[in-house]
Formats: sequence, structure tokens, C-alpha cells
Amino acid sequence: MSVLASNLPDLSSSVSPSLMFQQPFRDSQQVPMRAQISVYGALIQGTAPEEAFGGSDGAKSIWENALRSSAERLHAEPKKIIIDTDPGIDDAMAIFLALRSPEVEVIGLTTIYGNVYTTLATRNALHLLEVAGRTDIPVAEGSHVTVTFHLSIVSAFAWKEVWFDSLWLLFSKDNLVLMDMVSTHGAASFMILREKGTKLRIADFVHGADGLGNQNFDPPKGKPIEQSAAAFLVEQAKLHPGKVTVVALGPLTNIALAIELDPEFCKNIRQIVLLGGAFSVNGNVNPASEANIFGDPEAADIVFTCGADILAVGINVTHQVVLTDAERNKLIQSNGKFAQYLCKILEVYFSYHQEVYSMGGVYLHDPTALLAAVNPSLLTYTEGAVRVQTTGITRGLTLLYNNQKRFGEVTEWTDKPTIKVAVTVDAPTVVKLLMERLMES
Amino acid sequence: MSVLASNLPDLSSSVSPSLMFQQPFRDSQQVPMRAQISVYGALIQGTAPEEAFGGSDGAKSIWENALRSSAERLHAEPKKIIIDTDPGIDDAMAIFLALRSPEVEVIGLTTIYGNVYTTLATRNALHLLEVAGRTDIPVAEGSHVTVTFHLSIVSAFAWKEVWFDSLWLLFSKDNLVLMDMVSTHGAASFMILREKGTKLRIADFVHGADGLGNQNFDPPKGKPIEQSAAAFLVEQAKLHPGKVTVVALGPLTNIALAIELDPEFCKNIRQIVLLGGAFSVNGNVNPASEANIFGDPEAADIVFTCGADILAVGINVTHQVVLTDAERNKLIQSNGKFAQYLCKILEVYFSYHQEVYSMGGVYLHDPTALLAAVNPSLLTYTEGAVRVQTTGITRGLTLLYNNQKRFGEVTEWTDKPTIKVAVTVDAPTVVKLLMERLMES
Repeated sequence: MSVLASNLPDLSSSVSPSLMFQQPFRDSQQVPMRAQISVYGALIQGTAPEEAFGGSDGAKSIWENALRSSAERLHAEPKKIIIDTDPGIDDAMAIFLALRSPEVEVIGLTTIYGNVYTTLATRNALHLLEVAGRTDIPVAEGSHVTVTFHLSIVSAFAWKEVWFDSLWLLFSKDNLVLMDMVSTHGAASFMILREKGTKLRIADFVHGADGLGNQNFDPPKGKPIEQSAAAFLVEQAKLHPGKVTVVALGPLTNIALAIELDPEFCKNIRQIVLLGGAFSVNGNVNPASEANIFGDPEAADIVFTCGADILAVGINVTHQVVLTDAERNKLIQSNGKFAQYLCKILEVYFSYHQEVYSMGGVYLHDPTALLAAVNPSLLTYTEGAVRVQTTGITRGLTLLYNNQKRFGEVTEWTDKPTIKVAVTVDAPTVVKLLMERLMES
Repeated sequence: MSVLASNLPDLSSSVSPSLMFQQPFRDSQQVPMRAQISVYGALIQGTAPEEAFGGSDGAKSIWENALRSSAERLHAEPKKIIIDTDPGIDDAMAIFLALRSPEVEVIGLTTIYGNVYTTLATRNALHLLEVAGRTDIPVAEGSHVTVTFHLSIVSAFAWKEVWFDSLWLLFSKDNLVLMDMVSTHGAASFMILREKGTKLRIADFVHGADGLGNQNFDPPKGKPIEQSAAAFLVEQAKLHPGKVTVVALGPLTNIALAIELDPEFCKNIRQIVLLGGAFSVNGNVNPASEANIFGDPEAADIVFTCGADILAVGINVTHQVVLTDAERNKLIQSNGKFAQYLCKILEVYFSYHQEVYSMGGVYLHDPTALLAAVNPSLLTYTEGAVRVQTTGITRGLTLLYNNQKRFGEVTEWTDKPTIKVAVTVDAPTVVKLLMERLMES
């Protein structure tokens, strides 16, 4: 069954890799042959694996045994993940999906601005864990400002400040920041009005003023831990070297700060799976730039070139994964706790997509990135150095060098570490997994 | 017959439009249905049109009559073209191809830096016309410097100059230019060493130090006309309003200067067909930028946003059009004057492609753009606003907004005029046309 309703453009033809990806996709341990993708898919969905292979009963029992032991291994050692998040409606879907996925163990949430300001992101992260009954998972609050500004604050002697009525002006030789004290649901915090002449872009027009569909939920009872997001990331990576995967669903400030904080972080971390970038396609903030990268281009460039194992899932891929109106109706009819909650907050997100894309469905950005960490074989990818443009009209543009031409001169991509960039996705399986796991909650 | 030899990567699979071009291609008078492409192709190639249609004898005669009158009309009113060029080996191919194409009348060449400095481009343009026996065609010398620098010179009072040995330093508040007097084949000229900290990029490593395969041909006897390229373009467009097509094969400085010189130029010109840009693919100067746009990004942005009818043929398209070793051998064996000449100069170009792309063939950049002006139905295109990044690591990047998303905020693409951007090309027919016309010369 296709996930695409007939009133949507047929995106399946877009699955073919773009001109940029002429390089054959490399197999690796994480992205095995197509057959294996089907087997994993069938296992998780509870359908018989022979459907994927069309095999006999004999073949079935062999595969069942093989899969059972594989599943047991998976369940015995779930992948430790930290979700860096700016909830956010699709963040909420991704967090619930992670909590319902036995393949992964969520060892923490870290928060960041993006869909909302960081203060509200922290509140929403705590709230979502309370809804899920998982207050055992720590929440570490992340940066309120971009990496460049954060690092400037660190060298605070270079800053001067002026109070003007309720406005707080911070300025240095290169920067001028105008902050305003605001009250968000009773919690006082500072909202950055202007930084380096650019207003922080907060996508409340996509997710509602509260980030969760304008539902005005009660404030959470819990509090974030004392550690900052960056310090928490560094500590956990050091504590479990080679074991922790970061799933980054917002601007990459916290990850960049972790890299700045500890040069060993890139080696200690198992993988960074991130939702970000618009590879060879238009962005969603403007024609050049995708929202998470646009939120902090300098941070993204630090992360992409840090040498860690990175899988970037861009909107060139997530725009192939759509939750339709029909599927939302199924969620509404289910008794699943998460499904019921999500149906309350999804309306704003559907309205936004109808308005700007004329579609009767929503893109599953964050859930797709989350599932890429849960089961990497749901995607194929290419590899190459990626840089981020940080100035001018294409600020936030992500550009992959595909190694097709040997440039005579040194370029900004020369000798930079390569990362994995998702090219195709098994969209029907992503949607099916999401539906099943959220409806059975 | 495919144009691709078996030792080349099969580029035919790349013909499918990239993810960026999800918009259905718009038909227009210039790019009609596929059938019509075949008919034009068959006509030009001298094969019976019924091959394209598989029709009966009756159908054949109807089509033959229709095509004959169409061909007569074409021959009766050839399209006036001015070729803006930086010869350049593939420029030489394009110029000869134009002179052998009855569908167009070359009313002038204008010269520009790019493959060589402008002084040498002028010399080569005159030389190629002498080889062709077409010294009746005027050559107008173009700018020696980028549009930004040229416009700064115009306001010359802002400049100061210092002579230092043989070096000439020009500086203003914002710019420092270091020029050196050089002697190229006896002709004295100035070479710009540094401009705004960036050395002019001259691709002599692709085309040879003389731009024509290091053949050291005798200097031409002719001279360029007194008029500058920009003035010639403006004059001709005014003289034949709606009739003159510019085929721009180098950096777009002269075209931008024509636009600055006469605001009516964009209305007077019929179309600007340009070789430039790397749409949704890596560039050929670096991963971000294609050579002609990189040569003068500010000029390209002026041209793309000027409102004229523009067809941009980028390397996403020309990398699908390859002249193989086998085809070069056919050229060598022919008695055609142009074929014989080109075989002398092609060696350097083949070596370069072998070295940097590991291919036994060469890309037909300029001939493809020229044929796009001769017969627009050889390509399909999409339409949208295109902007050029002018700063940072992706300086020279071309970005098309495909109108898929309605952005809530004003972007740098909002309300800019749309241009046509080539998406696919009938590569076998382009190569066949080139071979036939050059071999029969």
C-alpha cells in the first residue's frame, strides 16, 4: 500500500537519486543489500518474512530462526540515543516513536531553539516525557544562542552591556545583541530580538506559539538537570565510548559546542544522525536553506567537518515521507495514548502544509531522522565532504562534493572528512512503522 | 546509435530531471512536444521524418511538405545571433558550428576573458573567422575586468594609481588591483594579477596557454571594431529589436555591461542563451561553482535578474553531451576544413578530461549552448527565478527557485523575473549535428 493519497503529487518518481549522486551508493555494514532492508521491515511490522522473499515454508523457518536471534540481539543491546530536540510537533512524534522502539534506549533529551525558543523547548521536552510516563529520562537544557554568539559570551571580557528600559543590549566589536525579558507561561527568560543584525528564526508559525499545536498544556512538574546540553553530550559519550548515537532534530548548536568543549567527543560518539540540509533541492526557509541548518549555519559547518560518523537526512529525503489525512484519521480512531495525544496537536501542522505546499498531509521530518537511527537500512546514502555557506543570500545552504571531478586547485571541500548523506528512503515502511508503533502505544 | 562509448560511464540515466525539478516542464512555442523534437532532428540530420513517427507513405508526404515549408521559412529568415566568446577550444567548435548552421546568421562576435584573457580572446576570435573565411563578421572586444571593477573604473575619480616597476597598482576605498604588463604573442596588454584579493581565473590549463591547444597559430591580420562589446550588443539589439539572440559562452560581464548601458537592452534583445551554472550538481571550478559564473558572479546575477528572455544551459546538461575518442577519429578521417582544424587543437582538451574526469571524451559545453539557440527543441527546460551567490565558499553558485513552496517571508528570489533553465538534452542528436556539420565543411 502506498502511503500517498491520490490527491497528493506522486512523489515516488522523486526517489531516483538526483544528478548530484551519480556515484554508486556504497554498501556498508549499516546499509546492506535491499533484501535485508525487506527482512528488517517485515520483522518490525510483524508480517512473515517470507512475504519479502516469496520463499517456501522451509525457507521461512530458517529465516524465522535467523531473525529471532537477530531480534534478540537487538533487544538485548538497544542502541543508546540522545535526542537533541526543539519540540515541535514532529519532534513530539519522533520522541514518542523512540520511546516505542525496542531497538533504541533513550538516555537523555537535550534541548535547543528552532521550532520554539530554548526555554520553551525544555518545557516541552519535560512535558512530553511526563505524558509518556518516562520522567526517568533526563533533560539537559541547551544553548539559547547560536554557536558563534555562545563562544563570544565565553570570552565575556570582550562584551559590554547596556540596560535600556526592559531591553538588554550586549555589544562587542563585531556583534550587537538586543535581548528582551519575556514571560513564557510564567517562566521568565530572555528572548533574543536581534543578533548580528539577524533575528533568530523561530518556526512558531509551523508548530503553534507553544510549539505543540496551541494546546496550552499545563506546565511540566519536572526540571532540567543542572548540566548543559553540551556538557551532558560530552559526558555521556565519554561514559559509553562508541555506544551513544545523537539524533539531532534542531539547529546544531549543542553538538558544535560539545565538539568545542571536548575534542575527543567526535571519537567517543558512535554516530550523529541529524535532520538537516537540502541537498540539491530548494530549502524550506528560503530557496537555498533548510530550517535547522539556517538556524545556525556556523554550527552546522563545525559539525559536518568534525570527523565524526555523521548521517545527514535532508529535506530532499524527508519530503518523500508524508503522513496523509487518511492516516491521521486512523490515528484518531486508535486508542493508543501517543496517537490520541498527537491528534490533538497535529491540526496546526496540517494547516501549515495545506497553506504553503497545497498538500493534504504533513512531512515526517523528525520521525524519519529518528527511524534512520533506529534502522539505518531504511535509507540509502552517498558519502562526501559537506560544507555550509555562512554568508550572503544562500546562507545555510548545504553543499556536498560528490568526488566526481579531481579539482586541480585546493577547494574548501579538499581534505575535509566525508559524511553520509541520505539519498533515498523506504517511505512506505517509515510511515507504517510510525503508525503501528504510535497506535499500539 | 548512442554517442557514448562503452568505456564511458552511462550518462543516459542522468537524463531524468533531478529532485529540484519536480515541476512539470512547461511547453511553450519553443519547446513543443517530443514528437516535434524528433521531426526537427530528423529534418536536420537528413533522415526521413517517418522514421521518427513510424508513419505510412501518405503520412510521409504530408510531413515532408509541412517540413519543407517550415525549413524554407527557417532558411528565409535565419535567426540573427551574436556570440559572446572566450575562445577556447569548445568555443572554436561552437563558432564553426554556427557558421555551418543555416538556421542562424552570425552578425558579430564579442570577446571576453575566461578560457584566456580578453586580449587573447579577441585575437583568437579574429583568427577563427579568418580560418573560416568569414572576415566580414565584426569582432567587438569586451571587458578585460569583471563588471564590478569595470563600473568602478567608470567612476574613475574614486581611483588612485601607482606604478611600481612594471606593476600598475590601482586602488580605491574598497578595491586594490595589481596589474602587470604582459606580452602575449607580440601583443602588449595588461594582465590583472589581483582584484579585490581574488586572481582572475583563466582556464588556460584546460585550453592551452594560447586558448587553442598550444598550436601557436600566426597572429590574425584583422582587427576588432572600435566599438566595445557592450556598445555593439546595445546597438545591434536596438537596430533589430526582438530579432537578435546573444549566445554567451563565457563570463557574463559584457552582457551585464550592456544592461547597465541601456535599460532597453533587455526588451530589445530576442533571447540570451548562455552556457553557465551548475543547477543541483557540483560545479567545475569547485564543488559549488561553474567556470563562467565563477568568472563574474555579480555580472551573472545582474543578467539572471534583468527580465530578458534567458535560457541558461548549465553543466548539469552539458555533462550529458560527450564527444568520444571514436568520434574524434571520425573527424580526423574526414576532409572537412573545420574538422581538420579542430583535430589539431582538440588534443589538449582530451588530455584535460582524461586527467580530471578519467574519461575518453570531452564535454561539448559551448556547442550544446550554441545548438540550443539554433534549435531550442533539442532541450527541455524548467522556469524559475535564479540568483547567484557572490560571497563565501559557494561564490558563483547558481540557485533556481522552483516555486514548489510558498514562502511566508520575502526571500531574495521573491518577485524576481523567471528564466528558463535547461533540464534535459537530446545528446545523441547534438553530437550527430556537430559531427555532420563540421565534417561536411
